[in-house]
Amino acid sequence: MTKGNLLYAQSGGVTAVINATAGAVIEAARARGTRVGKVYAARDGIVGALREDLIDTGAESTEAIRALAHTPGGAFGSCRYKLKDIERDRASYERLIEVFRAHDIRWFLYNGGNDSADTALKLSSIGEALGYPIACIGVPKTVDNDLAETDCCPGFGSVAKYTAVSTLEAGFDVRAMRSTSTRVFVLETMGRHAGWIAASAGLAARAKDDPPHLILLPEVPFDEARFLAAVDRCVKRLGFCVVVVSEGVRDAAGRFLAEAGSVDAFGHKQLGGVGPLIADLVGAKLGYKHHAAVSDYLQRSARHIASKTDLAHARAVGKAAVAYALAGMNAVMPVIRRVSQRPYRWTIEPAPLERIANREKTLPPEFIRADGFGITPAARRYLAPLIEGEAYPPYRDDGLPDCVALKNRSVRRKLPPFQIPGL
Amino acid sequence: MTKGNLLYAQSGGVTAVINATAGAVIEAARARGTRVGKVYAARDGIVGALREDLIDTGAESTEAIRALAHTPGGAFGSCRYKLKDIERDRASYERLIEVFRAHDIRWFLYNGGNDSADTALKLSSIGEALGYPIACIGVPKTVDNDLAETDCCPGFGSVAKYTAVSTLEAGFDVRAMRSTSTRVFVLETMGRHAGWIAASAGLAARAKDDPPHLILLPEVPFDEARFLAAVDRCVKRLGFCVVVVSEGVRDAAGRFLAEAGSVDAFGHKQLGGVGPLIADLVGAKLGYKHHAAVSDYLQRSARHIASKTDLAHARAVGKAAVAYALAGMNAVMPVIRRVSQRPYRWTIEPAPLERIANREKTLPPEFIRADGFGITPAARRYLAPLIEGEAYPPYRDDGLPDCVALKNRSVRRKLPPFQIPGL
Repeated sequence: MTKGNLLYAQSGGVTAVINATAGAVIEAARARGTRVGKVYAARDGIVGALREDLIDTGAESTEAIRALAHTPGGAFGSCRYKLKDIERDRASYERLIEVFRAHDIRWFLYNGGNDSADTALKLSSIGEALGYPIACIGVPKTVDNDLAETDCCPGFGSVAKYTAVSTLEAGFDVRAMRSTSTRVFVLETMGRHAGWIAASAGLAARAKDDPPHLILLPEVPFDEARFLAAVDRCVKRLGFCVVVVSEGVRDAAGRFLAEAGSVDAFGHKQLGGVGPLIADLVGAKLGYKHHAAVSDYLQRSARHIASKTDLAHARAVGKAAVAYALAGMNAVMPVIRRVSQRPYRWTIEPAPLERIANREKTLPPEFIRADGFGITPAARRYLAPLIEGEAYPPYRDDGLPDCVALKNRSVRRKLPPFQIPGL
Repeated sequence: MTKGNLLYAQSGGVTAVINATAGAVIEAARARGTRVGKVYAARDGIVGALREDLIDTGAESTEAIRALAHTPGGAFGSCRYKLKDIERDRASYERLIEVFRAHDIRWFLYNGGNDSADTALKLSSIGEALGYPIACIGVPKTVDNDLAETDCCPGFGSVAKYTAVSTLEAGFDVRAMRSTSTRVFVLETMGRHAGWIAASAGLAARAKDDPPHLILLPEVPFDEARFLAAVDRCVKRLGFCVVVVSEGVRDAAGRFLAEAGSVDAFGHKQLGGVGPLIADLVGAKLGYKHHAAVSDYLQRSARHIASKTDLAHARAVGKAAVAYALAGMNAVMPVIRRVSQRPYRWTIEPAPLERIANREKTLPPEFIRADGFGITPAARRYLAPLIEGEAYPPYRDDGLPDCVALKNRSVRRKLPPFQIPGL
């Protein structure tokens, strides 16, 4: 069997551990040097593949690849670019096959969410049609935890740990200040369509009345009157109230609260910022002193407080993706199966991309407390193992985490330029 | 010499390590059991002292007191309450002396910033005038790092570490996304009057062109045109720009930007949120995709990423405060002196409260880069040792830090109630 080359690319919002997956892919591919020639990465995700902007990871030392396991961000660059349907933009899919052919790429590993799974699925079929069979493996990654088929998504456990730890800590802070200062603290989390991240804050409540007291989920339409009444009751009873709100929370009409009318100092509609919005609402309607935090990118890049479980998942899917590719599988994704709850045990299995592409897994009703403002014991059982264990990065003498910046040496182009639609 | 009792109270915004100071105070006082009878804490700071709402820390186990070293927040409650001048509110000072006398309190340790130093200073003088000499020791604490006389303030090193680590991590994130997504990321930090916290983000830049690219300090009047030009240059050159902005940044007229005109969805003036404001400005004027994080209370409660140096400072000032009190000192504060830069060595010395009360130490000009948008090598030399070392809290099996909730058993009241002015 002649050697072929492998291409890896990162897609969508990066996570604290997507580089751990990248490192595992490269290490696994290097270990199979009799089959895999070059291990390439696309610069800036699929955009780099379309531009024939490839990186030769062979230029990186063993130590540099190992250090990916504790480096946040996306080492080769990621992108927010969704290919159109193959019927509407066949040229892009054909271009990708052309690039693969030019660089003898036999295996394409696309590390992303459900959009990326869709891209990988379509590529695998058109490759066959064009006489260049390419094994396309989706590799799961998303802080949103919204992929179908998998028990959880690499990247989520770490943002969940960050969110639960931050909520616990801020809860101690506000509790101490409640007598004369802040009464209501609001933490805004990511999660545009699914409330998994906001829900994970609920893990911080070890006992009754522990923060967070209220969680606002995208799955539950926001009812201002009910919410304000709940905040008021909480403050009257405990002296303070910690609220966690998902950026994706919507009103009864389905509009994102964050887009429902706020106009900023420059006269344009303010997107984002539902946390400050909710805090201001509390201040305006209830008169309580309030504060809001928006963790934004801090939450998904917080490698310093990554979950050990999540890191293990991230590495395992990378390793499995290479194994599946070399075993001749196609249009699959390594997914995580929960084998046992206590002790928590899990395994990796292949799942067909067609069952993952373009689907979205939101919080199931049985995970949402009856009043809509919290999580159930079932949700806790599901979430708890995902934040288990600490996976601290090494620190340098300067008091900051050690991170690697790769050389990212370009592969010489062989094809004419290509105009990416819309870019 | 007969025994007396010691009173400890926490004041102002809490920090990741103020409880470490509390723990050190209690441990040091317990170790001097031949002199110190009861170790009391005031519930909710000076407010509790005025209300005669005291806590007997003797009810807490050795383990619980030890666990204060890794518990964020303020274990006995803190307050934002500044006593008026003694000329305008003599009754409150007299009340405090009355409470001290009723509970045989000989030593009062007030853990806070420059307002608290002022309170302690005035109390010490009126006690003498009223024939009840009380030793008043200020114990330094503030994330703002703005106390005079001391090289740095316990609480600052940890928020500086949190801020530098978060900036480093988010920088990796944005760098990965720049080709098709976010170009400009803004992190808002605390620091209403002094730019120490925002400045500490500068430590994340290990090499030229590393994030953060621009730091907006309260010490430098905000010039919109210059700022936007600098952002634009940065994005054009590097593809992205990371901005750190202190909540205290002001326009040329001295008005906080955050208060200079933004009106929210509910029609009232929006306080706070200068980070989103700056990000929106960039979007409106330069058209770049932008994101903003507001770390708010997360930064000052982030015990999970506390600086080991800061923790050592926090414990040392607590221990020294007890020693000073029992040695008969009065109206002093244990402050930190830097003895050597490399290796970093420091010691604790007493400084008179009158040189600390009501003063404020802002960033000196020599720490601010010539263009006003960054820090100098001198600032780095000053800041770097303060974030050295990690002081991780222990974690429980549930993946969250172990924290202690004290019993906080009340001491029986002996006096009639007191109406605190303004509360």
